[in-house]
Amino acid sequence: MLTPFIVGIVMKSLHKNNLFCWSQFDEDRNIDFHSYLWVREAGNVVFDPLPLTAHDKSHLHALGKVSHIILSNSDHVRNAKALASETGAQIWGPAAEKDAFPIECSTWLIEGKGVLDGLDVYCLAGSKTAGELAFVIEAETLLTGDLIRAHSGGKLCILPEGKLKNVADAAASVKRLAAIEGINAILPGDGWPIFRDGQKVMSELVASISQ
Amino acid sequence: MLTPFIVGIVMKSLHKNNLFCWSQFDEDRNIDFHSYLWVREAGNVVFDPLPLTAHDKSHLHALGKVSHIILSNSDHVRNAKALASETGAQIWGPAAEKDAFPIECSTWLIEGKGVLDGLDVYCLAGSKTAGELAFVIEAETLLTGDLIRAHSGGKLCILPEGKLKNVADAAASVKRLAAIEGINAILPGDGWPIFRDGQKVMSELVASISQ
Repeated sequence: MLTPFIVGIVMKSLHKNNLFCWSQFDEDRNIDFHSYLWVREAGNVVFDPLPLTAHDKSHLHALGKVSHIILSNSDHVRNAKALASETGAQIWGPAAEKDAFPIECSTWLIEGKGVLDGLDVYCLAGSKTAGELAFVIEAETLLTGDLIRAHSGGKLCILPEGKLKNVADAAASVKRLAAIEGINAILPGDGWPIFRDGQKVMSELVASISQ
Repeated sequence: MLTPFIVGIVMKSLHKNNLFCWSQFDEDRNIDFHSYLWVREAGNVVFDPLPLTAHDKSHLHALGKVSHIILSNSDHVRNAKALASETGAQIWGPAAEKDAFPIECSTWLIEGKGVLDGLDVYCLAGSKTAGELAFVIEAETLLTGDLIRAHSGGKLCILPEGKLKNVADAAASVKRLAAIEGINAILPGDGWPIFRDGQKVMSELVASISQ
């Protein structure tokens, strides 16, 4: 029974009727940053939340209670703390960053399937922070934090080499995500989302970084 | 020799390195509105220009001289007049709206190929204004004004029936655009762009409105 929530939405709709985003143009990188909302009967989940306008905020609340704020890495904490105080949501962050994470988390995530019903967590190696997380929502939507991004429409890229802790490890992590069967969409925290043929676009990314 | 212009860009990159956009979230419709910039050696072309932030404006100028501002319909005039005074660009609008167009245009466009080098113009029937224009840039990018839009990621839709002057004419126009061979990308003035498999997505749109 998601329909009642969907009336009067104000965030941007994505490829499924229980996924939304709000965005902020980043003048340093010339891309939009995105935060994603996954609407669930058991409580809504927000990923890497940017500050909300009053308009977005009133509609975030209209879409139901936010139960979880999940952060992919310590550089994507964004407005998590304020949103948690406002909503009472739990904050979950990457276990590999526990010792120096900028805010308190109630759960430290390690890799695992079904961490919430319909949510799989992947730990990435070699990115700019240790153990950056990626997520698969309902088996078909890959949500990425920093490592996998999109600076041009319809095409993915990864962080520049100079920002990576270990290039080979990062490439291996990308390859591992590209091997997940059934991915239709890729929602990066930074840059244009991919809404179709996700696995194909991921394999093109693998090919481009293997050259 | 596009490369020198591309250094230091600040608008969002699209699927080709001579196409850019800037965007504004519309709180009434919960979609982003977009304006597109086509960088050409002979002078840059802007379509349906929204107001620019200081940041975008300085970079619009850094990308070269704007020679043309092209408007798809009278509801997408947006900030055209101010941008024309600032840049000296010509404003071109749809011939079918000449008699009641809200601003002066130096050229009234009718359907035709190669209106500028690499630019084809299509006139649509039945939309909310008479003779709304659509454009094909360099044979592979379809740019649409109001009739064809995207309220969900990766999928096109058309204006609701109540807004159309004539539903059958509008559907026929969509079908005609869907028949253009070689379209990879669709850039709507309103809503998520499609960056891949454009013609396939257009044929899905045709199927969805033929039901």
